[in-house]
Amino acid sequence: MKRLKTIGWSDSKECVRLIDQTLLPEEIRYIYADNLDAMYHAIKVLQVRGAPAIGIAAAYGLYLGVRDFGGDEGDITAFLNYADERAAYLSTARPTAVNLFWAINRIKKFTHDNSAGAGDVNTLKKLMLDEAHRILDEDRKMCRAIGERGFELLKDKPCILTHCNAGGLATSEFGTALAPIYVGQEKGVTFKVFADETRPLLQGARITALELSEAGIPVTVICDNMSAAVMATGQVKACIVGADRIAANGDTANKIGTYGLALIAAAHNVPFYVAAPSSTFDLSIPDGTKIPIEERGREEVAFWGEKKTVPDKAEVFNPSFDVTPSKLITAIITEKGVIKPPYTENIVKILG
Amino acid sequence: MKRLKTIGWSDSKECVRLIDQTLLPEEIRYIYADNLDAMYHAIKVLQVRGAPAIGIAAAYGLYLGVRDFGGDEGDITAFLNYADERAAYLSTARPTAVNLFWAINRIKKFTHDNSAGAGDVNTLKKLMLDEAHRILDEDRKMCRAIGERGFELLKDKPCILTHCNAGGLATSEFGTALAPIYVGQEKGVTFKVFADETRPLLQGARITALELSEAGIPVTVICDNMSAAVMATGQVKACIVGADRIAANGDTANKIGTYGLALIAAAHNVPFYVAAPSSTFDLSIPDGTKIPIEERGREEVAFWGEKKTVPDKAEVFNPSFDVTPSKLITAIITEKGVIKPPYTENIVKILG
Repeated sequence: MKRLKTIGWSDSKECVRLIDQTLLPEEIRYIYADNLDAMYHAIKVLQVRGAPAIGIAAAYGLYLGVRDFGGDEGDITAFLNYADERAAYLSTARPTAVNLFWAINRIKKFTHDNSAGAGDVNTLKKLMLDEAHRILDEDRKMCRAIGERGFELLKDKPCILTHCNAGGLATSEFGTALAPIYVGQEKGVTFKVFADETRPLLQGARITALELSEAGIPVTVICDNMSAAVMATGQVKACIVGADRIAANGDTANKIGTYGLALIAAAHNVPFYVAAPSSTFDLSIPDGTKIPIEERGREEVAFWGEKKTVPDKAEVFNPSFDVTPSKLITAIITEKGVIKPPYTENIVKILG
Repeated sequence: MKRLKTIGWSDSKECVRLIDQTLLPEEIRYIYADNLDAMYHAIKVLQVRGAPAIGIAAAYGLYLGVRDFGGDEGDITAFLNYADERAAYLSTARPTAVNLFWAINRIKKFTHDNSAGAGDVNTLKKLMLDEAHRILDEDRKMCRAIGERGFELLKDKPCILTHCNAGGLATSEFGTALAPIYVGQEKGVTFKVFADETRPLLQGARITALELSEAGIPVTVICDNMSAAVMATGQVKACIVGADRIAANGDTANKIGTYGLALIAAAHNVPFYVAAPSSTFDLSIPDGTKIPIEERGREEVAFWGEKKTVPDKAEVFNPSFDVTPSKLITAIITEKGVIKPPYTENIVKILG
């Protein structure tokens, strides 16, 4: 049993250690990134993926980017300019990753706010590293809190079905949707997990199945279109998924296929849980109809390895996400508490 | 616009002409089979697939197998023995294909029944070829009858979603589930079709999308997990699928994913049709719980082209079919008539 450590700081090597996710599931290889360019590359080519993990990578990346500052120890202004330049560069690594900007802006603001108090550049650098550690630590605590709360809901449901990957490999360690399963393992409760392979990019097969099986948790991969047949057998006692964005009424955008799965779960009276940090909620969006859905290219669907499988004369429709109406969601598990219907009222109550 | 001719007899070349389906969708190449071994190979390696098409291939294959009979013109007994040997050999081409045996047995019985009346071997050979033509012709008529009846149900529903391939490439020409769409085209009514790609073997992407787009019918391929998102947009006015086996109460076994699709259609008030020849019904099976479901190997799910996508430590569950309860089926379209609920009563009434 080994729980994979997605991303962390190596004190001995004074660099970031992260799993190269482009090699999964065939090889589990760690990258040691000791400069900004290595971190930029890791984010750009998806060696690190998942919103929380990207945020952590960005925070450490910006620190690595200023560690080589060659100017005068006492010239805080020059250092801040240098940090801003490095931040601007890092922001271009993956222009659609919201957590990338969030983390960069947090470290930038922190650096400016503490520049006067720090006194010299070296002290300020150390403070920046501490802030990156804090981002990592907050993520760990958030995942664990979701895991603990989720475990209370799932502990009498020994067989779980999940979609896509909202696991440890998208965060620092525990993940969100998979966190209750890891918490269960710590407490000696083993869940059996069905993982939808999750077309078109197969995150369920490649990532969820990998991290669970490496951790010693029994996992069975199915094609997305098999979930109804599996639920008809009565084995599945709950579904749990992550979320990309949750509206004020609880409607939830998540990886394509989530909505269909929720309908299938409802038809079998299987409870359907969403696990997500409070940062996933966007209370400025009243309901799911207002959530924009990204469409991606046909090549993700039209090829099987190197082989073309969809004829050129046929169209392809490839939405990345769908919206699950909140009426299909049994509860939303956040680090601040479990939210149950009526959502519009209870989301505000629990998130504060 | 060209409707693909799956399998047929070439009078000029005196052989079977069939599309090599192993090359689809990248290349549309015809094979000309003028001997039993070529036909055996075509069935074995899935150059021809789909129950009705395999039946037609077997019928012509057996004729080709006896065409080279080297014995005496008048020795009907020797000829019958030779035909039986050739039939036994052909039966081993694909041991799980029910229609293979059905067609071989029909031609065998026909040959024995007509051996006395024929008088000589050459006449009997000609009669066998005629019987193979009749099997092809009956299939064409069956598909067309389903197409005509289905068109009456679908003609005011301009956008259709289908799963897997129950089209012309599984039969002589029109198919079953896709037959109403081809009939519509003949009558000047164009349907827009969404085709589930149909994991794990992608028959929807490779075959349905090919035959429809070649015929000039607009088709859009989606991953199986996108059907709910597409139906939520309100575009899809009906689903239509084929069937592998239908029980006495109307419960229908079909390609994995059909059941989930039926649940999703029901949740969106989209009518769900099954199109199948009367030979698909097995009235000795009272309901769907008694239909055995084939499980296939993990390699169909665990690889993406040459690349392994499911880690070795994870299990794979790969059922080929699922069972859609008849309460989710709006109507079953057969060549003998459209069957509506209550199924147990009306199946007997219409099939006679």
